Amino acid sequence: MVVTWGSEVPERGLFVGRFQPPHKGHMEAIKWIFKNGGVDELIVAIGSAQESHTLRNPFTAGERMEMLRMALAEYNVSLSSVLIVPVPDIAMNFVWVRYLEMLLPRFYVVFSRNPLVVRLFREYGYKVVSPPSFERERYSATVIRKLMLDGNEAWRELVPYSVAKYIDDIGGLDRIRSIAGRD
Amino acid sequence: MVVTWGSEVPERGLFVGRFQPPHKGHMEAIKWIFKNGGVDELIVAIGSAQESHTLRNPFTAGERMEMLRMALAEYNVSLSSVLIVPVPDIAMNFVWVRYLEMLLPRFYVVFSRNPLVVRLFREYGYKVVSPPSFERERYSATVIRKLMLDGNEAWRELVPYSVAKYIDDIGGLDRIRSIAGRD
Amino acid sequence: MVVTWGSEVPERGLFVGRFQPPHKGHMEAIKWIFKNGGVDELIVAIGSAQESHTLRNPFTAGERMEMLRMALAEYNVSLSSVLIVPVPDIAMNFVWVRYLEMLLPRFYVVFSRNPLVVRLFREYGYKVVSPPSFERERYSATVIRKLMLDGNEAWRELVPYSVAKYIDDIGGLDRIRSIAGRD
Amino acid sequence: MVVTWGSEVPERGLFVGRFQPPHKGHMEAIKWIFKNGGVDELIVAIGSAQESHTLRNPFTAGERMEMLRMALAEYNVSLSSVLIVPVPDIAMNFVWVRYLEMLLPRFYVVFSRNPLVVRLFREYGYKVVSPPSFERERYSATVIRKLMLDGNEAWRELVPYSVAKYIDDIGGLDRIRSIAGRD
Amino acid sequence: MVVTWGSEVPERGLFVGRFQPPHKGHMEAIKWIFKNGGVDELIVAIGSAQESHTLRNPFTAGERMEMLRMALAEYNVSLSSVLIVPVPDIAMNFVWVRYLEMLLPRFYVVFSRNPLVVRLFREYGYKVVSPPSFERERYSATVIRKLMLDGNEAWRELVPYSVAKYIDDIGGLDRIRSIAGRD
Amino acid sequence: MVVTWGSEVPERGLFVGRFQPPHKGHMEAIKWIFKNGGVDELIVAIGSAQESHTLRNPFTAGERMEMLRMALAEYNVSLSSVLIVPVPDIAMNFVWVRYLEMLLPRFYVVFSRNPLVVRLFREYGYKVVSPPSFERERYSATVIRKLMLDGNEAWRELVPYSVAKYIDDIGGLDRIRSIAGRD
Repeated sequence: MVVTWGSEVPERGLFVGRFQPPHKGHMEAIKWIFKNGGVDELIVAIGSAQESHTLRNPFTAGERMEMLRMALAEYNVSLSSVLIVPVPDIAMNFVWVRYLEMLLPRFYVVFSRNPLVVRLFREYGYKVVSPPSFERERYSATVIRKLMLDGNEAWRELVPYSVAKYIDDIGGLDRIRSIAGRD
Repeated sequence: MVVTWGSEVPERGLFVGRFQPPHKGHMEAIKWIFKNGGVDELIVAIGSAQESHTLRNPFTAGERMEMLRMALAEYNVSLSSVLIVPVPDIAMNFVWVRYLEMLLPRFYVVFSRNPLVVRLFREYGYKVVSPPSFERERYSATVIRKLMLDGNEAWRELVPYSVAKYIDDIGGLDRIRSIAGRD
Repeated sequence: MVVTWGSEVPERGLFVGRFQPPHKGHMEAIKWIFKNGGVDELIVAIGSAQESHTLRNPFTAGERMEMLRMALAEYNVSLSSVLIVPVPDIAMNFVWVRYLEMLLPRFYVVFSRNPLVVRLFREYGYKVVSPPSFERERYSATVIRKLMLDGNEAWRELVPYSVAKYIDDIGGLDRIRSIAGRD
Repeated sequence: MVVTWGSEVPERGLFVGRFQPPHKGHMEAIKWIFKNGGVDELIVAIGSAQESHTLRNPFTAGERMEMLRMALAEYNVSLSSVLIVPVPDIAMNFVWVRYLEMLLPRFYVVFSRNPLVVRLFREYGYKVVSPPSFERERYSATVIRKLMLDGNEAWRELVPYSVAKYIDDIGGLDRIRSIAGRD
Repeated sequence: MVVTWGSEVPERGLFVGRFQPPHKGHMEAIKWIFKNGGVDELIVAIGSAQESHTLRNPFTAGERMEMLRMALAEYNVSLSSVLIVPVPDIAMNFVWVRYLEMLLPRFYVVFSRNPLVVRLFREYGYKVVSPPSFERERYSATVIRKLMLDGNEAWRELVPYSVAKYIDDIGGLDRIRSIAGRD
Repeated sequence: MVVTWGSEVPERGLFVGRFQPPHKGHMEAIKWIFKNGGVDELIVAIGSAQESHTLRNPFTAGERMEMLRMALAEYNVSLSSVLIVPVPDIAMNFVWVRYLEMLLPRFYVVFSRNPLVVRLFREYGYKVVSPPSFERERYSATVIRKLMLDGNEAWRELVPYSVAKYIDDIGGLDRIRSIAGRD
C-alpha cells in the first residue's frame, strides 16, 4: 500500500464493471453512489478492456466509454466528476487490486456487487460498499445480450435511450448476430 | 478502419504523451489545441502506463492522471471536455494505432510532435497536427527529471504549481533519487 | 490502413483456419479459390499457432504446416503460389486484422466461412468471400478429431492420403488418446 | 526433442535472420546453402516479427516477407523450396529453439553466423553450419540502414534490385527518416 | 536438450501438480517416490502459479508453498531434500517441458499421473513414472474443493492436519464461498 | 496487504538477487542475515528468471538454483531453512512487490542493497534492512562476468569453490564467450 499520499485528495470512489453494454441498473447504481456513497468523484473502470466481438463482450472499450459518457449526460451526472478508465485484464487475481492502484488515481472506497471484486478488495484492505440492486433480474447485461441475440426488442427498455441509439448507429445488433453465426 | 460509425459524434481529438511529469509545455499545447485545433473534446492518452519507478518513468499512470487533472483545473480547462486515459504499451508499433482505436472513443485528428507517433498515425490514414513548440529546450520532461535528480530547484518553474505541490506531497524527489542510488 | 502501397503486387488472397488437421474440405476450398477467387497467390494463415497437445488443437503449427504442404502437393496445387504462415493468437479481436496485416504480405481479398473472421475483416473494410461449403457435416475438423479419439477409422477418408499417413507416422492417434486419458 | 518423427522428410534446413532489409549478403548465403548445405528445402525464419517502425527494425514482417520473395525470384531461387516464416520474439533464450520447433516444419541443420543463434542451437543438440561471409563489412543491414538514414544512395547497390524498388514504392526512406526525427 | 551437464548431480526427480490444496494423496505419492522412485532429491513444481481466488484455483502459489512445507514436515519428509518451485503457466504445451528445464534444477525422472504431463515429457524424451493412485476417488483436490464449497466438513480428513489448520487460519473456506457468491 | 494471516508463521525473511552468478558477497550476506537478521527461514528469490544466454544474464534460473544450493551447502547453511524461488520479471515496478507476495510464502522483512528494490518494498510498507557490503568493488557479479569474458582467471576467487566447479562443468566460460562473439 503506498505510504506516501499527497495533496488534498477529493473523496474519490471506484466502480468496476464490464459494461457490455451499460444499462439502467448501472446508471441507478452511479446515481445512488453520488447520493449515498460519500464521494465527490467516481472512477468508472471498464474491465476486460481488451475484449470485443464475442457474445460475452461484444463492444470495444472505446465504444463502452462512449456509451457511458452519453448515458451519464442523459442521466445528468456531471462528466467532470466521473473518470472513465479502460482496464485490460491481468491474469493474476491476487495482483489485480494493486494493478488497479497503478493505473488509477487514488480512491478510498470501492462500490461493487460482484463477489470476486468484493473479496479481492476486502482481502487487500479496502472498504467495499455494495449498492442496492435495481431489479437485478431485468437490468442485467447478460439478459440484455440474450435479448439482442434473439431479436427481442425488449432490450431497448433496459438501457438508457442514448445507449440504444448508439448501438443502432454502430450496427451493434448486426455484430452480435454475425458473431453468433445467425442471420 | 471501423466502417460503422454511429450517433452524432463530438469533434474529438487525441493528444498522446507520457507526462513524466506533466509540464507547462503540455498545458500550453492543450490550450492551443482547444483554441486552434477545431475540437470540442480532447482525449489525453498517457502512454507507457505500466511503467513507473524508473528514471525515465518515475510516476505511475494513476499519479500522472491525478497531476493532469489538477493541472487542467489550474489552467481553467474544463475537466468534462478532457478524457484522460492510461494506455499500457503494446510491443508492436504497426498495430499500436489500431490498439488505441480499441481502447479510446473515436477521434478524428491527432495532435503530436513525436516523430514516431506522427508517422504511425499518418501511415494509418489519420490527420495529424503538430502544435507549435513552447520553448522546447526548457519545457521538456527529460530536462525536468534531470533537474530533479540533481537537486536543482529550477524544475519547479517548468511545471504547473499544482504538479510541483503534488510531487512534493508524494515524495517524488525522494523516489527519483532513491532509484538512482543517490541520497 | 497503410496508405503507401508499392511495387506491382500479385493478386493475393488470404485463407484463415486452424487446420486441426487439414482435411478434404480445406483442399476443396483452396482449389475453388484458385479457380474462382481471382487470385494468383494465396496466403494460408494457420491460426492458434501456439496451441498443441489439446483435444481441440492436437497438432503443432509446424506439424500443420508440414501436412498442408504435403496435401497441396497431393492436390497438385503449386507450392510456389501458396504462402503458409503460422499466426499465434492475439487476445484482442478488434486488433487482430491489423496484427495479420503486420505479419503477412499484403492481400486484397479474404476467404472464410467463419462468422467471426468474416465480421472482423468486413468491419475493417476488407472484401470477404465465402467459398461454398463441401459437405460441411462430414468435412469438419471437429468431426475428424472425434472419430480419431473414438478409434473410428472413418476419419481417414476425410483427409488427404498424405495427411493420414503423416498422422500415423508421428503417432498422432496415440497423442490424442493419451491427452484424453484413454488408452 | 520430439521422438516421433514421421513420413519421409525432405532434407530441410533453417536460416534465421531479421532481414531489415534483405540484402545481397543474405541472398549469397541462401544460394550457398542450396549449393553446399545438402538441403532440398530451406526455412527462412524472419525474427523479431512483431517489430517495425524503429531505426533497428524499420520494416514489418509482412514487408520483409514480400521483399524476400521478390529477391528470391530475382536470384532464381525456386519459391516452392523456400518456406518464409515470420517468428515473433519470445523473451526466453533457453526456450527459443524449442519455440521454433513448435512453429516450424522439422529441420535437420541450421545455418547461421550469429553467435547467440549458433550457441543456442548447439546447446540444444543441432548441427549448425556457418555459411562463408560475403564482404560482411559492406553487406550488413546495419550499414544499409545507416546509409538510408544519411540519405546516402550507396545502399541501393547492397540490396537486390527488387528490394530497392520495393522500399522506394512503400516510402521506406521516408519512414526511416520520419522515425529518426530528421527530414 | 542441454548437452553440457556438469558436476556430480544428485539423483533428482520432478513431481508436478497444482496442489489446490495439497492433500493426503499428494503426500502418499511423495513418500512413495522417495521410497521407490530412486531419487535423493525431489522438485515439487506448483503449476498455474499465477492463479488464485477462483473456484478451481483458490490459493496463491505462496499459500500452496507454505501448505506443502507444513505437510512435508508433518509427514517427516526432509525439507532439505525437497525443492518447491512455483511455475506460472505458459500458453504453449509443446514448449512447456523446455520452459520447466529453464526454471528448474536438472532432473532425470518425472513422476505424474496426469495424462497431458505424461505425454509431454515422454514426447520430449524423459522417463516418466506414474506412482500408484491412493484412493483417487477420495483424495482428489476437485472433490475437496467441492466439499469445502458445500460446507461439508469431510474435506478435513482428506488433507494433512497442518493443511486444514492453515486453511482455517487464512479464512480459506470464507474465500471459496465468497468467490462462489454463496454465504 | 493480505488481512488474513494464519497459523504460526516462522520468522521469515526475503533476499532478492539475480545471482549471475552467485558469489562470495552473496554468501556473506546470507550468513550475516541468519546471524543478525532475526530470521529462522530465508527466501532467496532469483530475479529475471526467464533470462539466460546474454552477457548480463548468462545462466538459466535452474542453473542459478543449482549453484546456490551447492554454495549454501559449502557454506554450511541449512538447506531446509532456505527457500530458493525463481521469479520471472513482470514489466510493472509498482506491482512487483504484490507479485512477489503472490509467488512466495509470507515474509516479514526484506534484505537488499539494491536501490530500486529497497524503494519498492518501503513504499509498499515493508521493513527493509541493508546487509553490510562485503568488498563490493570485488564481490560483484558484473565484475565477475567481465573477468570471465576477458579470460581472466581471477573470477575463480570471487565465487564459492562449488560455483566455479559447476561453471566449468557446464561450459559456462565457453557460453559467455560464444555469446559475445569471441573465441
